[in-house]
Amino acid sequence: MNNMIAWLLSGVILAAPTVLAAQWQALPNEAPAPADNPTTAEKVELGKMLYFDPRLSSNGTVSCFTCHNVMEGGDDHRPTSIGVHGQAGGRNAPTVWNAAFLSAQFWDGRAATLEDQAKGPPANPIEMGMTSLDATVERIRHIPGYKPYFDAVFGGEMSITMDNAAKAIAAYERTLITPDSPYDMYVKGDTQALTEQQVRGMDTLAELGCTACHSDANFAGPPLPTGQPFLQKFPSFSDNPFVADYRLMDDAGRMNVTHEPEAKNLWRVQTLRNLAYTAPYMHNGSVKTLEDAVRIMAKTQLDVDASDVQVADMVAFLGALTGEFPRQEMPRLPPTPGDLLD
Amino acid sequence: MNNMIAWLLSGVILAAPTVLAAQWQALPNEAPAPADNPTTAEKVELGKMLYFDPRLSSNGTVSCFTCHNVMEGGDDHRPTSIGVHGQAGGRNAPTVWNAAFLSAQFWDGRAATLEDQAKGPPANPIEMGMTSLDATVERIRHIPGYKPYFDAVFGGEMSITMDNAAKAIAAYERTLITPDSPYDMYVKGDTQALTEQQVRGMDTLAELGCTACHSDANFAGPPLPTGQPFLQKFPSFSDNPFVADYRLMDDAGRMNVTHEPEAKNLWRVQTLRNLAYTAPYMHNGSVKTLEDAVRIMAKTQLDVDASDVQVADMVAFLGALTGEFPRQEMPRLPPTPGDLLD
Repeated sequence: MNNMIAWLLSGVILAAPTVLAAQWQALPNEAPAPADNPTTAEKVELGKMLYFDPRLSSNGTVSCFTCHNVMEGGDDHRPTSIGVHGQAGGRNAPTVWNAAFLSAQFWDGRAATLEDQAKGPPANPIEMGMTSLDATVERIRHIPGYKPYFDAVFGGEMSITMDNAAKAIAAYERTLITPDSPYDMYVKGDTQALTEQQVRGMDTLAELGCTACHSDANFAGPPLPTGQPFLQKFPSFSDNPFVADYRLMDDAGRMNVTHEPEAKNLWRVQTLRNLAYTAPYMHNGSVKTLEDAVRIMAKTQLDVDASDVQVADMVAFLGALTGEFPRQEMPRLPPTPGDLLD
Repeated sequence: MNNMIAWLLSGVILAAPTVLAAQWQALPNEAPAPADNPTTAEKVELGKMLYFDPRLSSNGTVSCFTCHNVMEGGDDHRPTSIGVHGQAGGRNAPTVWNAAFLSAQFWDGRAATLEDQAKGPPANPIEMGMTSLDATVERIRHIPGYKPYFDAVFGGEMSITMDNAAKAIAAYERTLITPDSPYDMYVKGDTQALTEQQVRGMDTLAELGCTACHSDANFAGPPLPTGQPFLQKFPSFSDNPFVADYRLMDDAGRMNVTHEPEAKNLWRVQTLRNLAYTAPYMHNGSVKTLEDAVRIMAKTQLDVDASDVQVADMVAFLGALTGEFPRQEMPRLPPTPGDLLD
């Protein structure tokens, strides 16, 4: 009988799908928080208010939500984003979903944390257009209804600071994670969670080498110390028509941050999760379909001409990376003094 | 004993506050719906999706929500609204809260119903900027995820039409009502719901004559047939400095709709509810504080120089017209095809 059980168990293990390989990991149900900014319900609520508040932009029209729409893919469904006064930026809005799992933020990894990232757009002239972060803080202070919330979360005489606002926004963003996709359920043992084609696509992704970079639970690279982005050159192989057709080398990427030639066209590796919601693709939003994105990545990063079947299989698998978006209640924003915006 | 009860009851009635006068009415807990567009949960959910969807604007940046922010006062906290490409309109966004109780929509009453109103902004070049309502419908049809929702609510082969989209949006808007303000609780019999100052302000509002126009449960005029706006001349008395200081006659109001001289400076009477959330005030958003708004209205409409005490009392009362904003879950919007926006 013991032998029988041992035999059965060994059979189960032998017949287990490839998902049991260590490379395939499910997304955790919670995102880690830094020691100096623990996630609390009150902080998340305040952060949600700030995240949705367009009054943090110069003319009151642009909020975090504008370009990172959490009712959809956490981006803005545009090739590149539009900030105050109708100004278009140069890059595609990265999704906020699961950004909490990244070791650095922005396409070029120039912000170490979600807290740092939140301090970028407010004073960017073509994003939220405030003259400075001090002006942003003054704007928040001019809305009396915010003070009780900041006081309750952060205490102190001067609870409304940019650092605290950024901490609250980051705390909210750490709740924006999408576990339990079909892929996650499959990894956790539900062998019915993926279709045969999706399993083939998953294998193809590994065989071609995509998962060398798009690795780990968030398919965005290995765990790295906070602030150290997982960077790769894109395109790695530039001897193909895609580079010109999609203007893939027009933006120097990381070199804009470090100003060192070796950083030219380096980019933070993006997550593969929820891609069904985040078209168009690439740092410049130039690629309209997931089929094209997969084909282009195979060629430019691996010098592989993926077959139609391989592309279809991988796209099918990527569809299995759409997770459960948490239900969210709308925040209530405090009233506006009539002299806030002219 | 029976006599005793009768005596007690008569005492209660005799001591009842003035709120029992028929002019003071509580806001109903539900808004009426037209016979051809009954409110259903599925329709409301679809309408909420469309209401929050910026993809219904030319460049994907402006939704109904942009100018009618239901996380706040149902307006956009700006003097006048900003649409696509940073273009400013000429009027202050009217609140969507309790708009369901109005007999006509827009400041000049040019739309008979919420359904008609919803068909205004999409093809307005400085609001949502689509080239036509047909283009708006095509945009919605190009997002595959919407079809099952339209089919479920409206059925038929061609369920996605502008009329149906407008019906869904209107159905959602009929849920945007704010009963149970302190005033409403007072009218319903809770004599502690208002402060003494608020009761004085309420009496002042009636004594000065404000409630001649700001009448009935929504403080926006008497019940009128659908499509017939309750219009008043503003300013009625123009021999005062407010008219020039706040440019009150620069916009001809209703005359822009009818092109008849007698409609010059006629405006739909606005609700007094939730004014604490809807600064700045007036059709052009020129008045920053509620104190000034009350003082200006008393002078321009009643030729009354309201005293500081009267103004303070009325402002206190108006604060009691902030109702309970219904808790709302965020909608989930269907994914964007990569070629939706260029």
